[in-house]
Amino acid sequence: MIVTFVHVWVIPEKRVEFIEACRINHEASVKEPGNLRFDILQDAEDPAKFTLYEAYVSEDAARAHKETEHYRAWRDTVADWMAQPRKGIKHTILYPQEPAKW
Amino acid sequence: MIVTFVHVWVIPEKRVEFIEACRINHEASVKEPGNLRFDILQDAEDPAKFTLYEAYVSEDAARAHKETEHYRAWRDTVADWMAQPRKGIKHTILYPQEPAKW
Repeated sequence: MIVTFVHVWVIPEKRVEFIEACRINHEASVKEPGNLRFDILQDAEDPAKFTLYEAYVSEDAARAHKETEHYRAWRDTVADWMAQPRKGIKHTILYPQEPAKW
Repeated sequence: MIVTFVHVWVIPEKRVEFIEACRINHEASVKEPGNLRFDILQDAEDPAKFTLYEAYVSEDAARAHKETEHYRAWRDTVADWMAQPRKGIKHTILYPQEPAKW
């Protein structure tokens, strides 16, 4: 199991549309067979900063996400709304270790 | 519902003990009535960098965590193992919005 944090900085005039694009991406991503979580978060102190918390059963499952139509649609939709390049940071899961708790 | 990311940098010689202290904290924290998640993650590229992903039903529930014995024991145990001060960053949850999905 792995988690990727995707940190995203969005230009002010596109925040509402960005959240809507993330809703669509979230709803489709949680239906992927290898997905465990796909949480969409907004920094409480900096409304321009969002984080996608993407948990998958394996590296392969995380990679498969990037081949989906909904990922590609999100990527293309938000491309011009970035205030700076987004950063994906992979993490090893230490706890909980039981797949059923994800 | 809120999520706090707690970013922690640990001195190399204490990583194993830090993970064990986090296991104990994780196991007790997920039993708190207001807790939704308490994931312990390690950066895949930087083994000194850990993140605690702490989701609670409310700000009050997140605050109550800091009054627990297990939190205080973790805090005191790891105090001398920090390579730099840890950072807690609060986030608003956008999706999923249904409490049952947490």
